[in-house]
Amino acid sequence: MNHDEINTLLKPKTIAVVGASATPGKIGYTVVENLKKSGYKGAVYPINPSASDILGFKCYASITDVPGSVDAAVMCVPVKLVNTCAEDCGKKGVKGLIVITSGFSEVGRKDLEEELVATARKYKMRILGPNIVGTLSNSDKMNASFAPFLPLDGKATLITQSGALLIAMDAATYTRRVGFDKMVSIGNMCDVDIADIIEWLNGDESTTCTSLYIEGLKDGRKFIKAGRASKKPIIALKSGVSAHGAAAAASHTGSLAGAAKVYGSAFKQAGVIQASDLDNLFDRTLALSLMPPLKGENLLVITNGGGVGVLATDAAERYGIPMKFAPKDVQEELKKHMPEFGSAKNPVDLTGMAGTEWYAESVRFAISHPWVDGLIVLYCETAMTNPLEIAKGIKQALNEAGIKDKPVTVSYVGGEKSAAAMSWLVENGIPAYAAPDLAVNAMAALREYALLRETAKEPDYKSNDAARKAAMQIISAARADGRDALTEIEAKQVFNAYGLPVTSTELAKTEDEAVALAKKIGFPVVMKIVSPEILHKSDAGGVKVNIKDEAAAREAFNTIIKNAKAYKADANIHGVAVQEMAPWGTETILGSTNDATFGPTIMFGLGGIFVEVLKDVTFRVAPIDKVQAAEMFEEIRAAAILKGARGEAPRDRKALSDTVEKYSSMIIDLEDEISESDANPVLVYEEGKGLKVVDARIILKKK
Amino acid sequence: MNHDEINTLLKPKTIAVVGASATPGKIGYTVVENLKKSGYKGAVYPINPSASDILGFKCYASITDVPGSVDAAVMCVPVKLVNTCAEDCGKKGVKGLIVITSGFSEVGRKDLEEELVATARKYKMRILGPNIVGTLSNSDKMNASFAPFLPLDGKATLITQSGALLIAMDAATYTRRVGFDKMVSIGNMCDVDIADIIEWLNGDESTTCTSLYIEGLKDGRKFIKAGRASKKPIIALKSGVSAHGAAAAASHTGSLAGAAKVYGSAFKQAGVIQASDLDNLFDRTLALSLMPPLKGENLLVITNGGGVGVLATDAAERYGIPMKFAPKDVQEELKKHMPEFGSAKNPVDLTGMAGTEWYAESVRFAISHPWVDGLIVLYCETAMTNPLEIAKGIKQALNEAGIKDKPVTVSYVGGEKSAAAMSWLVENGIPAYAAPDLAVNAMAALREYALLRETAKEPDYKSNDAARKAAMQIISAARADGRDALTEIEAKQVFNAYGLPVTSTELAKTEDEAVALAKKIGFPVVMKIVSPEILHKSDAGGVKVNIKDEAAAREAFNTIIKNAKAYKADANIHGVAVQEMAPWGTETILGSTNDATFGPTIMFGLGGIFVEVLKDVTFRVAPIDKVQAAEMFEEIRAAAILKGARGEAPRDRKALSDTVEKYSSMIIDLEDEISESDANPVLVYEEGKGLKVVDARIILKKK
Repeated sequence: MNHDEINTLLKPKTIAVVGASATPGKIGYTVVENLKKSGYKGAVYPINPSASDILGFKCYASITDVPGSVDAAVMCVPVKLVNTCAEDCGKKGVKGLIVITSGFSEVGRKDLEEELVATARKYKMRILGPNIVGTLSNSDKMNASFAPFLPLDGKATLITQSGALLIAMDAATYTRRVGFDKMVSIGNMCDVDIADIIEWLNGDESTTCTSLYIEGLKDGRKFIKAGRASKKPIIALKSGVSAHGAAAAASHTGSLAGAAKVYGSAFKQAGVIQASDLDNLFDRTLALSLMPPLKGENLLVITNGGGVGVLATDAAERYGIPMKFAPKDVQEELKKHMPEFGSAKNPVDLTGMAGTEWYAESVRFAISHPWVDGLIVLYCETAMTNPLEIAKGIKQALNEAGIKDKPVTVSYVGGEKSAAAMSWLVENGIPAYAAPDLAVNAMAALREYALLRETAKEPDYKSNDAARKAAMQIISAARADGRDALTEIEAKQVFNAYGLPVTSTELAKTEDEAVALAKKIGFPVVMKIVSPEILHKSDAGGVKVNIKDEAAAREAFNTIIKNAKAYKADANIHGVAVQEMAPWGTETILGSTNDATFGPTIMFGLGGIFVEVLKDVTFRVAPIDKVQAAEMFEEIRAAAILKGARGEAPRDRKALSDTVEKYSSMIIDLEDEISESDANPVLVYEEGKGLKVVDARIILKKK
Repeated sequence: MNHDEINTLLKPKTIAVVGASATPGKIGYTVVENLKKSGYKGAVYPINPSASDILGFKCYASITDVPGSVDAAVMCVPVKLVNTCAEDCGKKGVKGLIVITSGFSEVGRKDLEEELVATARKYKMRILGPNIVGTLSNSDKMNASFAPFLPLDGKATLITQSGALLIAMDAATYTRRVGFDKMVSIGNMCDVDIADIIEWLNGDESTTCTSLYIEGLKDGRKFIKAGRASKKPIIALKSGVSAHGAAAAASHTGSLAGAAKVYGSAFKQAGVIQASDLDNLFDRTLALSLMPPLKGENLLVITNGGGVGVLATDAAERYGIPMKFAPKDVQEELKKHMPEFGSAKNPVDLTGMAGTEWYAESVRFAISHPWVDGLIVLYCETAMTNPLEIAKGIKQALNEAGIKDKPVTVSYVGGEKSAAAMSWLVENGIPAYAAPDLAVNAMAALREYALLRETAKEPDYKSNDAARKAAMQIISAARADGRDALTEIEAKQVFNAYGLPVTSTELAKTEDEAVALAKKIGFPVVMKIVSPEILHKSDAGGVKVNIKDEAAAREAFNTIIKNAKAYKADANIHGVAVQEMAPWGTETILGSTNDATFGPTIMFGLGGIFVEVLKDVTFRVAPIDKVQAAEMFEEIRAAAILKGARGEAPRDRKALSDTVEKYSSMIIDLEDEISESDANPVLVYEEGKGLKVVDARIILKKK
């Protein structure tokens, strides 16, 4: 079972240190020293052929000499010895390898990693790493790493792809007062990956929140699955999201960067909350690890300073949890705990005269009131009041109210006394921050978590075997023809197989055929050149629109063929596509790419300037269902247009979400065949009147 | 002279405390105590009729009893006594009143404020406040406030509209290690305002940067003028920028909020850098007070950890200073100071092995290289290196390089040792931050400052007297007619007087006149009903377009009149406007409002969905000139459309900027008359082909 296997890596009962050293300063020494210093309760077996004892632990020449059983082996040997040592571990019956050693795929030696994985598979061992700092756990009093000490104790677990950052963040837990139970260096992820740890953490009683620093995932879809199944909040900081950042990341890690933009969508689909930067990762982790989600929209802010109250209000709008005025009864009650010139509206300004009692009374009332979904308490240091006493008053009021399912965050603006009060609050389970916007941002994370729990679900998806079969025939024929781009007619046939409402388009090889097809389809029609060599049809004079009768159809056919020949004499001309002329509607675009990390991925946007000038598009990792498709329509800036802006009737979003679901099925079913595709434009009509895919394009994967 | 007057408030040589108290805990006691504790060197005169001595200072019954001259009087008496005491101060020859007392316009008693101002004017006294904490200065060892101590010493001066925030920030300077030379509580600004202090600070040797917390300005244009003239960087945190925040702010201060969106533009026009929140105000202030502006685009990042390097790179893009790869010669030199697996590309990754020497060598080389405009140094705490030593190495390298005109910011991610190293750096003049994105954000502020110094200039503006005279005739006629909305024809006449290229539009009262005008203007024409009672002309069937000949003109005239009468029988019908039909162009909109804080303000955007759905508009406080107008075109998201997106020719931006300049002149010249106006649409043609204002609207101020 996966859970037991990961247990041997993250909660091993016995540890061997392969490559242990008696020389201080060497990693093989530091790891043994750290296990000792951290108070690890299991057996520790240093392995080193030339030492008899390291730091009081009996040393063995080979792991096979160790008397008892060994759960995990921490590997600190040079890279050239790793595989031999892994063989020995396998023979010994070791269950997990924690491979600190570097020099694998991160420097281009993927072969060494594959060799190591093969050895591990042979002996049913799991691997953490290679190229890691190790793994640390407060609840197990275990520092199986070369990071100098266990982090400040906390309820979150950090998984990081950067070892340097683990060490720096470890130290920073003490200055920032944000603790972790575990810190796991995940490294090259040749075997166990972030998704495995996320899954394992569901069963870890010491962890209430998973905090991630991600440079690049390997298996994006496995990550999404694990995120959706997580019973605990997950917060991720993704680095390399800028264009130059992605390039810089590529130069320093072995992992695939993936399209930066797709990550944002994938996190959302996985139910993973995002951190904007390193500070924000610490800050949001603190709140997510201590507080329940914010289940409703009604946020109350209590303050002793109008200024910080307004700053919090601004921040609430900026972070997507805008505030409202409190209802009358709430205002009336709160008015009792402030002077005449205070304000009970929200933010509730108790004024600078507010002492412990007013704070406590207001907090106790507010958290208990059914209107209030979440509470932010702000304090500006004054000469007259005692920050720590007020902190204790807040905590006691919350205890007395006994409400466990509403989140509270706190901000103190002030000096040493305020800092001490905030430390006390955090130690007593209440997230506290040094600026009002930070307390609001933390609350926003709790709201995001509540919303993501609703939306990040497995799509309602089934493979369409009949459609797939039909599509494969068309694709195979094109491949047999030596092509990896389908013609528009072929692409539309594939779309059509999946039920996408394409405009009728058929191939005419002669003038007479063109007329017959135009009559069958119904005038007016559009006619376009069909030639694999002519991609830019308009430039070649190969497109005629609004052809209204037989005479015009004949003329158009001949003109198009003549123009095409003039444009490219040696072009292989299949004929002329005769196409239904769809009435004009709201122009939208669907596209797909095959992302290196996440696989088939859908893009949606409005057409024309919205895509070309405003880049107003949104992404989803496929498959998605109708409901998830409809969420995309809300995400674009021009969302209002689909709802019927400027007096127009709302567009048929039901038909559109249905079409996106089918498109998603198509690119998933044909994942091994389609490299990229698009439906552009998709003309969407009024509600109830459907849509039409006017042009279609499919590029096949090279085989 | 203004400078000397403000001197008496912020650097008084002698201070009286009017309302001094011998009772600890009272504000009148605290102020005297603070003056003493802070080591103030001038004479201190407590004024209190019932005490003879307070804290060792001889006490006087009335200020008129004080033997020597008095620069400033700190007023702590109850509000009802303030004016009487001010009279006494005036008689005594006091030059400045620092009015701590509250109970004025912030609680609706503007009358008391006006009375106080009148008294001050009578005796040529200046007033700071009322409703303030006081004013503090490290360089003068003066704490003339009830804030408990002087802030950590620094090179910036804080001016704040929130007294509570001043006290809290005062304490926070010690925990954040961001100091101030002065902290000025500005309060209700009944006399001296933020602009006055900004101007005064130009001559203050102890201040290198002005830091503002603003709730609402009173005289927006004076602020812009002071900002432009400032010789030092100014950074502002504006609270109440959200919809609910503005409402909350209104409930707790006496000042006008102004349209939140206009503030952003006004800050830009004033050359004022913005802070996003309280943390950001501290962080950016630190860099702006210690470092020169970032004059070019080439930013080099040196790091010992790839992870933080990539995070910095991401932040650089997010904050508008995207990074590039370093040129070959830079890379080659830097390669010498790192192991084989490091990276010299940018970010320059010295790897975790980097000690003081590599850092120092890289920094010394990089800051001296002509390609490098600014340098960000990142450090991830490791077990093997000494944070403080590396800090000293960085400082020494910078000293040796001797480059004074390029900025450097630093980030350390780590624990106590890193915190100590950062404190050392700040004390030695190098801004240092606890996360890489903060160091980047600080650098972005230095870049914004460099750019704002170029753009925030007085507009090249002259009043147009002839146009104003012509416009006033039309406006007076409309007022005489009892109207405060001009008709389209009148509005176009006003626009035309200012040289705005409106479509020819004339009034026809009869069918024959309509035909004659159509012929004069040239077919095709547009015809519209003219009636002050019919605002929605299309709804009334009062608009006909594309009228191609005489017969059509006759029919249109009659139909429009008939429709209008049917729509509103008692409407006062002036006739039918016959209008040149402008060829279609790119639709843009100009609008103006009269902002409560900033006065006449211009809005610009593209028409249709861009304004209505995307709210893609930008603002400027008038007047602006051509060059400043052109900057607006770059600010909208759809900026590319004016440059000729999707294969179209670029639009005539020269004509457009010329038009915006004229529009700006119009609303400034007619500031006392026009409440709001718009030119919608303004159709902009290809470069060299100009534009046409198709419709015009002017609403007059009620008189």
